[in-house]
Amino acid sequence: MPRYALKIEYDGRPFAGWQAQADQPSVQAAVETALAALDPGFADGMRIAAAGRTDAGVHATGQVAHADLTKEWDTFRLSEALNWHLKPAPVAVVSAARVPDDFHARFSAVGRRYTFRLIARRAPVTHDRGRVWQVLNPLDADAMREGAAHLLGQHDFTTFRSTMCQAQSPVKTLDAIEIEEVALPHGAEFRFHLAARSFLHNQVRSIVGTLERVGAGSWPPERVADALAAQDRSACGPVCPPQGLYLTGVDYPVEPFRE
Amino acid sequence: MPRYALKIEYDGRPFAGWQAQADQPSVQAAVETALAALDPGFADGMRIAAAGRTDAGVHATGQVAHADLTKEWDTFRLSEALNWHLKPAPVAVVSAARVPDDFHARFSAVGRRYTFRLIARRAPVTHDRGRVWQVLNPLDADAMREGAAHLLGQHDFTTFRSTMCQAQSPVKTLDAIEIEEVALPHGAEFRFHLAARSFLHNQVRSIVGTLERVGAGSWPPERVADALAAQDRSACGPVCPPQGLYLTGVDYPVEPFRE
Repeated sequence: MPRYALKIEYDGRPFAGWQAQADQPSVQAAVETALAALDPGFADGMRIAAAGRTDAGVHATGQVAHADLTKEWDTFRLSEALNWHLKPAPVAVVSAARVPDDFHARFSAVGRRYTFRLIARRAPVTHDRGRVWQVLNPLDADAMREGAAHLLGQHDFTTFRSTMCQAQSPVKTLDAIEIEEVALPHGAEFRFHLAARSFLHNQVRSIVGTLERVGAGSWPPERVADALAAQDRSACGPVCPPQGLYLTGVDYPVEPFRE
Repeated sequence: MPRYALKIEYDGRPFAGWQAQADQPSVQAAVETALAALDPGFADGMRIAAAGRTDAGVHATGQVAHADLTKEWDTFRLSEALNWHLKPAPVAVVSAARVPDDFHARFSAVGRRYTFRLIARRAPVTHDRGRVWQVLNPLDADAMREGAAHLLGQHDFTTFRSTMCQAQSPVKTLDAIEIEEVALPHGAEFRFHLAARSFLHNQVRSIVGTLERVGAGSWPPERVADALAAQDRSACGPVCPPQGLYLTGVDYPVEPFRE
């Protein structure tokens, strides 16, 4: 059966996360239902695998999943047909590609990129509600950058890992953490861009929640190094909420998508 | 009674527009209800006036209204209190200012600025649903800019005016129309920035809908000049939907807001 990779964008608000769960709306189930509608051979019970199993409320602009279909599809027609069947869910296939049978959206991935959006201002956000984390205090981007620098490279990230995390090892390599500051008319937005081969459960939200404490002046930047060295979950800052988190891209040894 | 100017941001989706109407949710009623909750002297039936009466589904980042209250307020506390009472409506007071008694949000305004967001791509928008107008065809920004240039300056804008428009004269001066192109991973966003002392009803949406036809290649840019010269509503291109429109700012001879 021919295998296809799908690049998927979604608004996480109405979903209990990527992963299919009984009696809960999930992005995975939405995509599987659309696949079954256009390919009756995509039988009930066939599952698709994704590069990142995003939590409830987390968004994606570049999630990648793969599916085995029973016939050959023109990839443009495949995205168009899936998007037709996905309506009105806020999920869209932005690109589809034919991939080799040994391509696996999760296990072939060699990099994941996330962006976390944080808005600091007094007035409640209106347009971006559910799409950003808002704090009321101003934040010092340079202090956050200084704190973040301690996390670059290979470390035991036990401090920045959910106690529910199922990864075998807490050792991960953080390849990049960049903090972009965007001035707003009445406050500022901070975009945290993180890249790694893979992440631990809640790692991005644990890191951003901790760096927010640094930006607010509650933590000196060096305390991030101490927290990391402690290898102790209780040394972490407050974990920030999911709605500012976006899975923006997944990297493979051979890029499957042409556009 | 002391008069206050309020700079107001809102997501237009849940509202039937700015203006209060019986049995329909409006931004005006939301703000008036909040004012009455914090100032019992702001009696039932007292109305506030706004610089732009936005239609159903139209958004604002810089709407301005004024209200007369029965006591003096610290302006920071006034915004905070109003935002408290506005919850959970997606409306926020981003700034408040004490203004002279002869300040009128609508009649003192000497300029209005609007932005229209248009996304051109195949896959349905997910995150920005209800906040942009989407078309499926690619658009040529330079052709749209060439068409738009015909509209600059003082003209009879009868072609680009709703038949419901109540303005006494169809003659307006368009001070600026800039088209910003933002590349997206799978398409492009076009932001139309327009400025004038005042606009006719549906003028921005009539102009953007017409320029989209130019960008798509259906209209040569010169046809915009012909349409304008016709002074005939039927010469207008299709009026585009409201959800991409944002009132971004209002100008006064003396800027009332400090930040």
